[in-house]
Amino acid sequence: MENCGCITCDAATKELYEKAKNEGIETVWDRARAMQPQCGFGEMGLCCTNCGMGPCRIVKVSKDGPQAGICGATEDTIVARNFARSVAAGAAAHSDHGRDIALALYHVDDKARIKDEEKLFKLADEWGITVEGKDTVQVAKEVAEKALGEFGKVFGNLLFLKRAPEKRIKLWEETGVASEAIDKEIVRVLHSTHMGCDADYRNIIRQAIRAAMTDGWGGSMIGTELSDILFGTPMPKKVEANLGVLKKEYVNIVVHGHEPTLSEAIVVAARDPELVELAKKQGAEGINVAGMCCTGNEIAMRHGIPMAGNFFQQELAIMTGAVEAMIVDVQCIMPSLATITKCYHTKLITTSPKAKIPGATHIEFDEQKSFEIAKRIVKEAVMNFKNRKGEVHIPDEKSEGRIGYSLEAIIKTLDRVTNTHAHPSGTVKPLVDAIKSGVLRGAVAIVGCNNHKQPHDSCHVTLAKELLKRDILVVTTGCGAHACVKAGLMSDDARKYCGKGLATVCELLDIPPVLHMGSCVDISRILVLLSEVAKYIGGDISDLPVAAAAPEWMSEKAQAIGLYAVASGVYVLLGVAPAVTGSENVATYLTKDIESVFGGRFEIESDPVKAAEKIAAHIENKRKRLGI
Amino acid sequence: MENCGCITCDAATKELYEKAKNEGIETVWDRARAMQPQCGFGEMGLCCTNCGMGPCRIVKVSKDGPQAGICGATEDTIVARNFARSVAAGAAAHSDHGRDIALALYHVDDKARIKDEEKLFKLADEWGITVEGKDTVQVAKEVAEKALGEFGKVFGNLLFLKRAPEKRIKLWEETGVASEAIDKEIVRVLHSTHMGCDADYRNIIRQAIRAAMTDGWGGSMIGTELSDILFGTPMPKKVEANLGVLKKEYVNIVVHGHEPTLSEAIVVAARDPELVELAKKQGAEGINVAGMCCTGNEIAMRHGIPMAGNFFQQELAIMTGAVEAMIVDVQCIMPSLATITKCYHTKLITTSPKAKIPGATHIEFDEQKSFEIAKRIVKEAVMNFKNRKGEVHIPDEKSEGRIGYSLEAIIKTLDRVTNTHAHPSGTVKPLVDAIKSGVLRGAVAIVGCNNHKQPHDSCHVTLAKELLKRDILVVTTGCGAHACVKAGLMSDDARKYCGKGLATVCELLDIPPVLHMGSCVDISRILVLLSEVAKYIGGDISDLPVAAAAPEWMSEKAQAIGLYAVASGVYVLLGVAPAVTGSENVATYLTKDIESVFGGRFEIESDPVKAAEKIAAHIENKRKRLGI
Repeated sequence: MENCGCITCDAATKELYEKAKNEGIETVWDRARAMQPQCGFGEMGLCCTNCGMGPCRIVKVSKDGPQAGICGATEDTIVARNFARSVAAGAAAHSDHGRDIALALYHVDDKARIKDEEKLFKLADEWGITVEGKDTVQVAKEVAEKALGEFGKVFGNLLFLKRAPEKRIKLWEETGVASEAIDKEIVRVLHSTHMGCDADYRNIIRQAIRAAMTDGWGGSMIGTELSDILFGTPMPKKVEANLGVLKKEYVNIVVHGHEPTLSEAIVVAARDPELVELAKKQGAEGINVAGMCCTGNEIAMRHGIPMAGNFFQQELAIMTGAVEAMIVDVQCIMPSLATITKCYHTKLITTSPKAKIPGATHIEFDEQKSFEIAKRIVKEAVMNFKNRKGEVHIPDEKSEGRIGYSLEAIIKTLDRVTNTHAHPSGTVKPLVDAIKSGVLRGAVAIVGCNNHKQPHDSCHVTLAKELLKRDILVVTTGCGAHACVKAGLMSDDARKYCGKGLATVCELLDIPPVLHMGSCVDISRILVLLSEVAKYIGGDISDLPVAAAAPEWMSEKAQAIGLYAVASGVYVLLGVAPAVTGSENVATYLTKDIESVFGGRFEIESDPVKAAEKIAAHIENKRKRLGI
Repeated sequence: MENCGCITCDAATKELYEKAKNEGIETVWDRARAMQPQCGFGEMGLCCTNCGMGPCRIVKVSKDGPQAGICGATEDTIVARNFARSVAAGAAAHSDHGRDIALALYHVDDKARIKDEEKLFKLADEWGITVEGKDTVQVAKEVAEKALGEFGKVFGNLLFLKRAPEKRIKLWEETGVASEAIDKEIVRVLHSTHMGCDADYRNIIRQAIRAAMTDGWGGSMIGTELSDILFGTPMPKKVEANLGVLKKEYVNIVVHGHEPTLSEAIVVAARDPELVELAKKQGAEGINVAGMCCTGNEIAMRHGIPMAGNFFQQELAIMTGAVEAMIVDVQCIMPSLATITKCYHTKLITTSPKAKIPGATHIEFDEQKSFEIAKRIVKEAVMNFKNRKGEVHIPDEKSEGRIGYSLEAIIKTLDRVTNTHAHPSGTVKPLVDAIKSGVLRGAVAIVGCNNHKQPHDSCHVTLAKELLKRDILVVTTGCGAHACVKAGLMSDDARKYCGKGLATVCELLDIPPVLHMGSCVDISRILVLLSEVAKYIGGDISDLPVAAAAPEWMSEKAQAIGLYAVASGVYVLLGVAPAVTGSENVATYLTKDIESVFGGRFEIESDPVKAAEKIAAHIENKRKRLGI
């Protein structure tokens, strides 16, 4: 499974990629090849289109070329501005997702729709909302209102910043990155990067950090918390993964995108006896729902719905000829799907007013009529079963794993073993003890996307294995989580990849060595976990022997995540260089100098084995400083 | 003064540009020359850097090159996304300016600081704020709170949308562009243009319109209204303009940027007897404040402070060797100023946390200590007088004009002549009568920036003259206003450029044929004027024989302005093509099809004479449809 120079280390992907080639269907890899060479100015962040005098390009290789934009902006300014705008867009995407979840909670009018009442009341308490004499629906509305206020409140900082350790909160205040309202910070990035505003790269990055913080400690955390309240807090469960989860004799519905509001409704609708009966009438054995990308993570974690695959498998799913409908909402949905579905019977159904695709069928989702609309969408899929063309080609490949490690699940697991049943901070004791003793060396989050600049899944999986054998626990989300579960790293059998210490811990706690913590917004769960551990040891996140890695990142969200992680004190390794290499100052700041400010920094390393070495060295260094 | 193939039609600019050349100082024109040829992909909007798989470039000239991005995004998607993000950034800049003004009003604790109490109470009434039993300061706070709420309120549409004619409001609702909170709409553009979200160019443009509307009918209008309340509503006054307003024997302070909060304080501080005395001690005759770009417009309109010049003159001002300090806040400030000031004695002082420039002195402005900080800044300038190097070279060139035509000023002017003293809508009667009778054919707003792609000022001035001779009244803001006043078009003498009808109207009303309506945010004044006229005739803005032109635009704000004007029913002529030509669909939609939806559209025409012809034809067409 190691990187062999292939496009992917995943067998199902290889198989369907070959099919695509044979059938002359263009996939992401073909388009990436056709795009070579990619623009060097853009790759280095040296191209500016922030005003109508441009585009401007800084020529770094020769002193004869332009050394500044037409307005006089240097490479530092241009690179920092481009980076900041990417981060802002990423934070906008995640946060707007959080807003929609908050709106869904706001509109709940039936207690039965609140799946985690305990979490609701806990959050109400955290936010100082009085609950006495109020029913669940009323409390839900008030919590939702408070959450919605986070996006646009006129005064005050993000409420969730208070979840961080004391030292970190103080540092954020001192360094001017304690974010205010979510939308305001994002808008301010656009303002300060407008032509003729900020030209100081450090100041630009400071504002970018403020925007990034509104992702992790703002919109994403709101998204996660309120999704748990609405749909249930994930608990460990077994799940099957990879394209082999599609079933030849069933109506296959792939739900793809990000926001659980849609997918939750689809899951329920697909179990509707009337629709199942209809499917049978069409000659199918039933209805099979599978999830893709972060939607896949969301419904797998909560309902054990099989995980069809990650970002680079979305086109391939259609090529099985077995997918009656691919239902999408927002983010990471390749527009190419509309072209590919033309060659197969698959219906591409868009559902969000924020994401229409020419050639797709648009059935707008409305949270307030969710079941009704979900049924209509599922019916479209069912009625499409009879339109299958040619042979169905579903790869055999599928793996099994245990997923669903929310913070609460982790704490419950630790509780079960240690019987501490204490305050969360107390409950992390066994984890801390294992790290202190050296049985566990540390923990690493492997997150992020797929990117043609890296072999598909290969970097996620190789990096994870390299860490496991060094007794480093791995937690994962997003497309990284898909890669790991597909590679069998969430099975008990995966203990074979672990060093002795980690294997023992896994056995003792009865956990896989790679813990699935959810979708990309759920990286907020990791922030809370890190905060709890840091608080327990009376230190800061930056003291901990931990790191994060996004070996195959591609999305602007990943840039926002990386930056809030760095600002939270985490060492973040990127497998693909962001477009900042055109400015030595910016690149040096982000990969080196920023550490002296926030205790975290970026590292760029495309080779997953070297990445593991660097991460392990970082962890050992942190251990040394802790004197453990 | 017509376009002679020179870089500029302005004599002072020519003179100092020659000086720069002789001294080997690099200016915007040199950097523009060095940047040729500019990237064709960027110019056409065909380059995408919205994810880490990119940059992607669509090759339109050959079918062998990539026809879609790596994700499958077509040229339509890529072009629309780039355009939408530009618009969002422009709207963000303008709106964030409005927010700062609202915050300044919020913090007012002394009635004396409210310069237009009548306007305050009028706005309170418009927004349904009860004023009985409340003092002015309290009302100001409540109005400010309501304004601040517009940026982040959870539910409801922009309050100022209600100022539009009924038909327009209905159209906005029907077409899904009645914007909600300002920041939310801008953030939504970033979300929907994120990788894998919206791929439908019309839908992307619809969201871009929602963001653009938050500029004109949101942040800009808030900026204008609240600035008037705080600093006084502009009334006609004489002013001098061009670099010749600098005075050799005086301490010259150039205030440059956008937000009047800073410049107002500087104007007051520069009159402080203690500081004037200090200037005299340094050998100067006194302190001379001049304004540049929109800051120039703001303080000229309210205080008659001389207007030093527009966007392309900021570097040249320093080359006079007579500027002790250039004080800047946000937007349109060339980072090159820091380089140029190194060759002269001029101190470049940045004041906004949103816009620092390496090499400048940063003295952060704080509205709550405004006078204290302004004095400190002015003192820096005064103490720099003795550091003048070499010869002072101030061009003789300066013009005089009458400026300050706020909506209230225009109504007062009409009132004075006609004695209607009625409701604003009634007061526009004489204007409507003049248009109906054909004495005036119509009215055009000339707005926007300078851009090296057009000869400096020349397009503004030529277009204005071409319109005047066709009996078309011109209103202007921003850098266009600077160009017109410098060219003498705001003097009584300018009647010589007018057709007989317009000359008569100007004489009757005692107005110049080109009315200075303020800074770029003040285009909101034009929206209100258009609404009042449309309401008076019982129609819509799109019925009126009016147009807008931005012949030399360069800023993202200009793209936002253009789009909200189109969505408000206005024909908008751009002298420089926006980066949308790479998609035939997007270009056709914006320049043609969109008219059937909103009654306004874009027109691209770089030649100002042809532009005038097209505008005149549009106006005659509208007249015909009105049956006048």
